[in-house]
Amino acid sequence: MINIRDLHHNYKDYDGKVVTIGGWVRSIRDSKTFGFMVVNDGTFFEPVQVVYADKLDNFETICKLNVGAAVIVTGQVKVTPEMKQPFEIHADEVVIEGESTPDYPLQKKRHSFEYLRTISHLRPRTNTFQAVFRVRSLTAYAIHKFFQERDFVYVHTPLITGSDCEGAGEMFQVTTMDLSNVPTKDGKVDYSQDFFGKPTNLTVSGQLNGETYAMAFKNIYTFGPTFRAENSNTTRHAAEFWMIEPEIAFADLTDDMMLAESMLKYVISYVLEHAPEEMAFFNQFVDKGLIERLEHVVNSDFGRITYTDAITELEKHNDEFDYKVYWGCDLQTEHERYLTEKIFKRPVFVTDYPKEIKAFYMKLNEDGKTVAAMDCLVPGIGEIIGGSQREDDYEVLKNRMAECGLKEEDYEFYLDLRKYGSARHAGFGLGFERCVMYLTGMGNIRDVIPFPRTVGNCDL
Amino acid sequence: MINIRDLHHNYKDYDGKVVTIGGWVRSIRDSKTFGFMVVNDGTFFEPVQVVYADKLDNFETICKLNVGAAVIVTGQVKVTPEMKQPFEIHADEVVIEGESTPDYPLQKKRHSFEYLRTISHLRPRTNTFQAVFRVRSLTAYAIHKFFQERDFVYVHTPLITGSDCEGAGEMFQVTTMDLSNVPTKDGKVDYSQDFFGKPTNLTVSGQLNGETYAMAFKNIYTFGPTFRAENSNTTRHAAEFWMIEPEIAFADLTDDMMLAESMLKYVISYVLEHAPEEMAFFNQFVDKGLIERLEHVVNSDFGRITYTDAITELEKHNDEFDYKVYWGCDLQTEHERYLTEKIFKRPVFVTDYPKEIKAFYMKLNEDGKTVAAMDCLVPGIGEIIGGSQREDDYEVLKNRMAECGLKEEDYEFYLDLRKYGSARHAGFGLGFERCVMYLTGMGNIRDVIPFPRTVGNCDL
Repeated sequence: MINIRDLHHNYKDYDGKVVTIGGWVRSIRDSKTFGFMVVNDGTFFEPVQVVYADKLDNFETICKLNVGAAVIVTGQVKVTPEMKQPFEIHADEVVIEGESTPDYPLQKKRHSFEYLRTISHLRPRTNTFQAVFRVRSLTAYAIHKFFQERDFVYVHTPLITGSDCEGAGEMFQVTTMDLSNVPTKDGKVDYSQDFFGKPTNLTVSGQLNGETYAMAFKNIYTFGPTFRAENSNTTRHAAEFWMIEPEIAFADLTDDMMLAESMLKYVISYVLEHAPEEMAFFNQFVDKGLIERLEHVVNSDFGRITYTDAITELEKHNDEFDYKVYWGCDLQTEHERYLTEKIFKRPVFVTDYPKEIKAFYMKLNEDGKTVAAMDCLVPGIGEIIGGSQREDDYEVLKNRMAECGLKEEDYEFYLDLRKYGSARHAGFGLGFERCVMYLTGMGNIRDVIPFPRTVGNCDL
Repeated sequence: MINIRDLHHNYKDYDGKVVTIGGWVRSIRDSKTFGFMVVNDGTFFEPVQVVYADKLDNFETICKLNVGAAVIVTGQVKVTPEMKQPFEIHADEVVIEGESTPDYPLQKKRHSFEYLRTISHLRPRTNTFQAVFRVRSLTAYAIHKFFQERDFVYVHTPLITGSDCEGAGEMFQVTTMDLSNVPTKDGKVDYSQDFFGKPTNLTVSGQLNGETYAMAFKNIYTFGPTFRAENSNTTRHAAEFWMIEPEIAFADLTDDMMLAESMLKYVISYVLEHAPEEMAFFNQFVDKGLIERLEHVVNSDFGRITYTDAITELEKHNDEFDYKVYWGCDLQTEHERYLTEKIFKRPVFVTDYPKEIKAFYMKLNEDGKTVAAMDCLVPGIGEIIGGSQREDDYEVLKNRMAECGLKEEDYEFYLDLRKYGSARHAGFGLGFERCVMYLTGMGNIRDVIPFPRTVGNCDL
């Protein structure tokens, strides 16, 4: 059996040869003595047209097939330069592997994304989701390839975590206790009876663990699931999503930005090269201008501006914003997009944010007011990457933790990294789904995750 | 700054040139006018010897450095054919990036794995764990590379799941409810108030979800975390581990075994080629004979035997086993190892197990007694892969589900795959940590996971 991908890539070599394919019927129609069926096997975006004739014993049965049926076709490849499709298969045999029914939920018409979300086990059989999930797969691989080619060590940071570092309120708890009869002691939940003997949650970031490995391997990256129990129903938030978090030692914020810029360009180029049919489809049907925008990113030097300068620039346009900017404010998507789309007209790094709006672990700048943070903003979406140089000074870090109300004993391992051979280091986080949305032009995070989890939704 | 990996690979080209490295001091000793420090930066298994002399302004300070300190060294590379190490760096400058202390937990002596487990944030700085976690990273990449080169689509199956398919008792529950005050309704837990509006767990396998994508893309694989809340404290079980689960459509058990065999050989070859220093280290210090055993696997045609024939063979040796075998019994590790090490003397697939000891989704053979399952057994470990052809007949599957006491309504999506274009398909599961143990010879799963989670243990 041959993959339709190979057939499409080398159809001229197969001209006149007999091949066997297996796949699913996308459409089928017949006249009295012969018929056409369009078959897709999922290995390639384009399907194959099969011509079958009444010389086949089971011609009548084939004619009655419904859309969605699985068939194994053996026949001769015929190159058809005069037709829309580059070649056809003239069937010598059509084995019906599995039938379908007239009420097959994916008929040959356009279904709404909303409807398709209700059949998440079948939607990958449609054109759009064939394209989305192949690009998702290629994107994941491009990320691995980029880091592995640079000898980064891939680290699996833990999913279940005993620390409730950042915003415990938004974390999922993990337990094996009987919820209908939670054991208590002195009026409190008795976690000594739980699986791990203490409260545990699902991780919101692998960064702190990742740092411990960067201080051993110099260059590492994580790529794994993270979780947020945020009660928000937007097109950009999911309760379960994947993150990439590289961390580099003996490196500062400038190195960090260079890494982020190279990675984004590498991943975009890889996907454009390896999924041209899928990208053309998105460009035509989902997001006109997508390819041009992505190619522009690959060919641009990313801009750089400090937060302070960015605020000065944006303040000039405050009348155009819903939220007015001022020094100290968090940038909203409208501001981010204005910066990258209107002012820079290319991707831009905004650096050195006020410490009050950033996390405790970011390196304090000499001004004592800002931290060595960077956000990478891209046209069409705003922030796609957030990173920073990490505070590597033991005393400064301890003070920042106290300021933020964090308990030292919860971060002993983290402080140890500043006690034993501290070194400047930096890293960033890329939300994988946001990256896939950016590459495909898909507007809803639910449509780039095979089985999305959002508040109130955990199907299949 | 240059990586020590590049330096080692091309040191002859660097002879006489001035380079800068950053890394951590592994050992340091001095005489009156000069000293030696061994520096490792984590990019390569072998460190670099740095010679520093009293011409340096900070000579005295350098001499007082403790093991574990971080330094940035600039100096001239000198090839040293007469010495044990192939080259040295003669320092022009040693910048102390971060000091260490005399009580640094990793002194230059052999520490027990047990002790190192108590400092999981520092152990990756030791030789053994440098080797383990680089090999882990390379193994992960080799798996991706193998499948991507064959155009398999990487699918992220969900971690949080609403189905309690297999053995709910061993699953972790996921909840945002207040455990000290679980909401109830009519005396039962009121899951309508939980994040997803129903009980949810951490997945034990992505297979069923994976199958839905194989029926769209033909060839897919998953590679993600899975969870078991088993209350077992063995050297082979962890509560959180990673699994690889490929699934191939228009494929049967024979195709499945070919895929498993190719994958194992590919991964072993990749690691032997890309981590020769690490593998030599394991072979010398952790598991003598490791490399020979792995090379033997790469060069063997894997054997094949049915469960029924295997039982006949093993029964002849029942006096050598703690657990006597008989038709219908589950094979224990002692039996598996006997088969692969004594009888076949190479990896072997055991196929067609009694349906009673296998899962409901495995394809029933024509004899009505056995299913099209396969376990891949390898010398030194026993089972490393388990797989099967899946039941693709709607009615047979429904009957098996009823036999196993499963509710149809929980598996509607799964039955749909047999209703709309069913096709023969097969897949297998590879426990990633077990694979890393096999490749490194490490005997305890806690020592191949960066931050292991086992019953009662969830540190960092």
